[in-house]
Amino acid sequence: VFVFYLPEHFYNGEKNSGFDVLYHNMKHGQISTKELSDFIRERATIEEAYARSMTKLARSASNFSQLGTFAPVWDVFKTSTEKLAMCHLELVRKLQELIKEVQKYGEDQVKAHKKTKEEVAGTLEAVQNIQSISQALQKSKENYNAKSVDQERLKKEGATQREVDKAGVKAKKATESYKLYVEKYATAKTEFEQKMAETAQKFQDIEEAHVVHMKEMIQSYSQAIEETHIQIGEVQNEFVNNMENTTVESLIQKLAETKGTGKERPGPIEFEECNTAIATEGAKP
Amino acid sequence: VFVFYLPEHFYNGEKNSGFDVLYHNMKHGQISTKELSDFIRERATIEEAYARSMTKLARSASNFSQLGTFAPVWDVFKTSTEKLAMCHLELVRKLQELIKEVQKYGEDQVKAHKKTKEEVAGTLEAVQNIQSISQALQKSKENYNAKSVDQERLKKEGATQREVDKAGVKAKKATESYKLYVEKYATAKTEFEQKMAETAQKFQDIEEAHVVHMKEMIQSYSQAIEETHIQIGEVQNEFVNNMENTTVESLIQKLAETKGTGKERPGPIEFEECNTAIATEGAKP
Repeated sequence: VFVFYLPEHFYNGEKNSGFDVLYHNMKHGQISTKELSDFIRERATIEEAYARSMTKLARSASNFSQLGTFAPVWDVFKTSTEKLAMCHLELVRKLQELIKEVQKYGEDQVKAHKKTKEEVAGTLEAVQNIQSISQALQKSKENYNAKSVDQERLKKEGATQREVDKAGVKAKKATESYKLYVEKYATAKTEFEQKMAETAQKFQDIEEAHVVHMKEMIQSYSQAIEETHIQIGEVQNEFVNNMENTTVESLIQKLAETKGTGKERPGPIEFEECNTAIATEGAKP
Repeated sequence: VFVFYLPEHFYNGEKNSGFDVLYHNMKHGQISTKELSDFIRERATIEEAYARSMTKLARSASNFSQLGTFAPVWDVFKTSTEKLAMCHLELVRKLQELIKEVQKYGEDQVKAHKKTKEEVAGTLEAVQNIQSISQALQKSKENYNAKSVDQERLKKEGATQREVDKAGVKAKKATESYKLYVEKYATAKTEFEQKMAETAQKFQDIEEAHVVHMKEMIQSYSQAIEETHIQIGEVQNEFVNNMENTTVESLIQKLAETKGTGKERPGPIEFEECNTAIATEGAKP
């Protein structure tokens, strides 16, 4: 069970600004969603550029000289580099899927915030109400004090009864108005506290749900990156194994087989006596 | 112990070309060395570009909105992305060290090949020698046959004794020349076989040492990549842990602490009767 921080922390303050702070805080949630999709998009762009460069590097390796004992080793580099490019492209694909999910959430969020704005309209009214009643109460209190002082002053200065009575009527009116605002304030205060408690809790629910959803999407991001990391590790292990299997002996053997010019040494040549009978025969016109 | 493939496979063939093939194969070793350093350099360039992009991405994360409940999470992204950039820069540094090593090896290789060229000069001579003696032997054999036939023909046609004797002298000279070339060939053949056996073995030693050295440098390359892979895995684990530790509750709490407007509800306001004595006092000019 969760402590309700927000209802506890957003009461007083300049002009009861807690409501404004919470409302704008909710709206900032839309910015974080946009920023998350921006972040993932930039990461995807980086991964794609890396994959493209790796594909180019693989092509370089396959264009390297086909001559010499070492040449067959470039195949190992080429294959491994191509696979590395594939791993990063697969990550790009996953991140692009995730960006769509984040954007969809962003759209839902905008709608939900619009709905919330309507739902908390009554609270905004209650906030404005207690603000204006507070001011009016202060004014009416000042007026009441002024009128009371006026009446007392006239009495002391020995003014006419008519003047004192007239001041008395004004003081009574001011007293009634002051008392009325004290009552109004009490009602507005109850209304404000009740609405603010509800609304702060609603804002807290919204923030919680937002952060939970953001963290879920970040978990998908992490998972995609971890899967890629494992795949890259496998590609690297394969590279090491293939390199080990490409032994020095096998390379020398391959050279002998593909470039060898022959196993037989030059034959012995001996003196051959001329058989003039056959030679003459062969020389006939 | 290694089978000596090369001495077995590079004898006969067009004009005893085994020597040429082996010599040029050795020279191709210089190309593979150059290509290995090219490959590693291109890889380093790719890693550096990736690291630069990651640094930029980290900067993006740190420029994201500082407002809203989610804002503190960007620190986790920023730190992790910066560390990821560092891992790749560390790889770049290792690869650049390795490139220097490959280049140094390339220079040593050029010197060694120059020395080898001098060492095998005698073999090249032996190859050219057996080639030219073979041709001369063939010519002298043809001359011997022609002269023998001439002598026989003159005898049969009943030529003068003087003519027959003259042809006899020519035939004898041709026979001696032919026999001399048969002897020369036998000597050249022995020389050729012996020198070729030595040289083919030398070329095999060179190829073996070359491939062994190349594979050692590739192992350094692999190792640098594996170390980076492990570091990246650690950065990723740290990211996941930091993300887990950034709980929804802690984020809401942080919001309450940094943006909270106050815990106290608006105070109760009661009717305060005017103390005219004090009020008048206070109102005095």
